[in-house]
Amino acid sequence: MSAVSSFLDSPEDTREEIMRATYFALSEHGYADLTIQRIGAVFPKSKSLIYHHYDGKDELLLEFLAFVLDRFEENVPDGEVDDAEARLWALLDHLLATPLPDGRRAFTGAMVDLRAQATHDERYREQFTRHDRFFRERIAAVVAAGIDDGTFADVDVDAVATFLAAAVVGTMTQRVTSEVEIAPAVRDRLEEYVQTALLADQ
Amino acid sequence: MSAVSSFLDSPEDTREEIMRATYFALSEHGYADLTIQRIGAVFPKSKSLIYHHYDGKDELLLEFLAFVLDRFEENVPDGEVDDAEARLWALLDHLLATPLPDGRRAFTGAMVDLRAQATHDERYREQFTRHDRFFRERIAAVVAAGIDDGTFADVDVDAVATFLAAAVVGTMTQRVTSEVEIAPAVRDRLEEYVQTALLADQ
Repeated sequence: MSAVSSFLDSPEDTREEIMRATYFALSEHGYADLTIQRIGAVFPKSKSLIYHHYDGKDELLLEFLAFVLDRFEENVPDGEVDDAEARLWALLDHLLATPLPDGRRAFTGAMVDLRAQATHDERYREQFTRHDRFFRERIAAVVAAGIDDGTFADVDVDAVATFLAAAVVGTMTQRVTSEVEIAPAVRDRLEEYVQTALLADQ
Repeated sequence: MSAVSSFLDSPEDTREEIMRATYFALSEHGYADLTIQRIGAVFPKSKSLIYHHYDGKDELLLEFLAFVLDRFEENVPDGEVDDAEARLWALLDHLLATPLPDGRRAFTGAMVDLRAQATHDERYREQFTRHDRFFRERIAAVVAAGIDDGTFADVDVDAVATFLAAAVVGTMTQRVTSEVEIAPAVRDRLEEYVQTALLADQ
């Protein structure tokens, strides 16, 4: 999570400092109780700078959402290893890591909280449509590469990617909104799924 | 969704009328912009009645959450058919129905919106912990019955239920927060999963 730590530990400019303050204020108060005032309380410079850059909470949060989705996407392993099965697990294990490190938990919680706005606000829905598509396509690319090199059977790439992404999104959502840690059981069944439904030459 | 339609179409008492108004106001405005004022605007009786029953928005929404989770749970098919595979599909198809009927979409959106509060409010997290457990146990009961009657192989019941529940929660969450309808692809891969990983005598 280097790109995430980077803007949290050493923001590079005023915009990243505002993003950092937004992140901490959102994690503490949640979207509904978030105000520019509360973001200003964890912003090291003058609060007027925030108003200078953003017209209000919604404009700021939409930019924050684009910013964190970019960070999330940069951090999804993009397959620097050759082996397709290892690439798929690098991707899935990044998201299903147990225990979820505290920083990642807060980050995931912020994404779940902002995603909820997409139920009734099309600006948020547009961002999550793009993000969900990115995530499915990233998985699909790994599966397609595995079919090409003979690791995986000739499966329906898009359907498999959609299914795996749904299991991961459901796991991420539940693990930051309920007390039971379900990731190990999900990972266990995903491993069986990869073995029985994806691997060639069974 | 008879229990849902029932409180929406013909609320039985003042409490159900308040739940109905809360449902419509939440679907329209979202949790963050919801106020007792806005609930009062779609409540057919005097708004003072709402204040008489509830101290504020949070107390009302927590009761609303318990109320809708009860309705959701009552509506999950509980297996009136004998065949374990048919029971499992009745349950999964209820949740993955495509297209999602408008009323169910709004209902699912309200649940996703309230679930987001669980990222930073333990009162909501407590309710979703209970709800997620209920849902896993309902699936586990169907799978266990299928093992008992020889339909399903001797799988790890809890892990399978957790995996299926994660895929369903991920699908429900994405389908009300992004524009792409992923349910048919997920259902297709779930069907393959049931055939290859669950059914006995392959």
